[in-house]
Amino acid sequence: VSVAENGGRTEPRPDASPQGGGLRFKRELTSLAAAPLLIWTIGWGPPWLLAALMILGASVALWELLAMGERKGFPIQKVLSLGLFAFLMLSFLTPTLPVALAVFAVLLVIPGARVFSRSDLDSALPGTAVSVLAILYVGFLSAAFIRLRIDFDTDGSRLIFFLLLTVWMGDAMAYYTGKNFGKTPLLPRVSPKKTVEGLIGGVVGSLLTAAAIHFTFFPQFPLGAALAAAALLSVSGVVGDLVESAWKRSAGVKDSGSLIPGHGGFLDRLDSILFAAPVLYAYWYLLHNPIRL
Amino acid sequence: VSVAENGGRTEPRPDASPQGGGLRFKRELTSLAAAPLLIWTIGWGPPWLLAALMILGASVALWELLAMGERKGFPIQKVLSLGLFAFLMLSFLTPTLPVALAVFAVLLVIPGARVFSRSDLDSALPGTAVSVLAILYVGFLSAAFIRLRIDFDTDGSRLIFFLLLTVWMGDAMAYYTGKNFGKTPLLPRVSPKKTVEGLIGGVVGSLLTAAAIHFTFFPQFPLGAALAAAALLSVSGVVGDLVESAWKRSAGVKDSGSLIPGHGGFLDRLDSILFAAPVLYAYWYLLHNPIRL
Repeated sequence: VSVAENGGRTEPRPDASPQGGGLRFKRELTSLAAAPLLIWTIGWGPPWLLAALMILGASVALWELLAMGERKGFPIQKVLSLGLFAFLMLSFLTPTLPVALAVFAVLLVIPGARVFSRSDLDSALPGTAVSVLAILYVGFLSAAFIRLRIDFDTDGSRLIFFLLLTVWMGDAMAYYTGKNFGKTPLLPRVSPKKTVEGLIGGVVGSLLTAAAIHFTFFPQFPLGAALAAAALLSVSGVVGDLVESAWKRSAGVKDSGSLIPGHGGFLDRLDSILFAAPVLYAYWYLLHNPIRL
Repeated sequence: VSVAENGGRTEPRPDASPQGGGLRFKRELTSLAAAPLLIWTIGWGPPWLLAALMILGASVALWELLAMGERKGFPIQKVLSLGLFAFLMLSFLTPTLPVALAVFAVLLVIPGARVFSRSDLDSALPGTAVSVLAILYVGFLSAAFIRLRIDFDTDGSRLIFFLLLTVWMGDAMAYYTGKNFGKTPLLPRVSPKKTVEGLIGGVVGSLLTAAAIHFTFFPQFPLGAALAAAALLSVSGVVGDLVESAWKRSAGVKDSGSLIPGHGGFLDRLDSILFAAPVLYAYWYLLHNPIRL
């Protein structure tokens, strides 16, 4: 769920709590407290701290996604899944442990353990599938975020700021554009409040943010390339949000969880960023390492 | 399905075709025709030929697994999945295209495309999950087989022979032991014909095969290590077989497909080998590259 979900229509959010404005206030309070810490961590903190925070948040998001699978009626070995996720994240941070070996572990242990569990066989295929999807989706996407900071030397912090600012500013602009000019529903079946006008406003917001970033602290990202990346990230963020909405509708839940006051679940907060992170990673990588077949 | 499925009980296979002995004969004919070609390909052919054959077989196996998901009632974008599988396999064979980028593509495109498809949302979570599981399971496991041949210099061919012979000989010994001494069911719910006695016979068969391999063409694989690997591979092959059986039961199908005469589906033929390949890959890798955290 993004704030843009509210844009384009006047009725309240279906999942808004009774206190209304109080919720909004709580939400802004949490953000206000977290923002300076986050900015320091990205720009000046050690890379391992950002990695640790991301892995912590991703673990909760993974748990929420696994719980969605359970809500859908599939028995899921959640603790085992979390353990394999930890091993996968370790492989992303340990040069001598190839990521492929951790992926092998996920792909063999989850289905193998399911065979020897007491759970019904009827849900064996979708149950193992949801567990494997959840581990690898949250694992690889949050690893893209972490490695964005680590793999590209001095550009790492700037890339993280670029990612967060283009996605979040785009999101905010989408919200206000949708609220004021929203008419054409984007994908009403999945996310009834999103409008095409909001999407366009969001992309414009991301483009302006990218330009501002280029001219202030990130001249190393050529303007044209930065604008193209921003448009891609803006749309990716929206798709990531839609994907999570579709999964939630499929599982019949409204919020992915409720750990942060007023913020819905961790997965709700991370969905756009998780989906956009590998896009920026691949973009930056391919910009500097052309592929020769 | 392995031949060991027949061991331990006297009633005919529930999925045996009416012709009975004719089926068995057809099966042996196909094997007889394929064996010399396979041996030449592994031992003397160029590595790309073995890779091409494996990718071809794995593609059919993937298609069968996707079809199982459809049988289970989940709409699946099969052609898109096959395209992403091809891209994933390309990344395993192209040093300048990181595998992580192909995994990102799978994890973003399958869920993203599902959101914009016309399929019902109810199956969005399990549908995308089965598609992603199928691509990555068949993709990473067959890549382990291919890279086993490529990554370890002159040992590559020998490792492939070691894998195939220990798994297949173990399988054959499990069949005969189970048929003659089988009493205790192993996991009757998943695979009613497998017995503990068959499993033990299979492990012994794999151990003898490994010793024979060590003393004939593969002295570079130390005897103790080869025996330990053989026991691991034997059990892995059985688990791989059980995993596929569980998935088939979950989807309500008997054979994964029917492309090779008398042999069931490709996935039925490849299940043990696919599951054991990453085990041998990880084993050999870790034997030569200790992990330092």
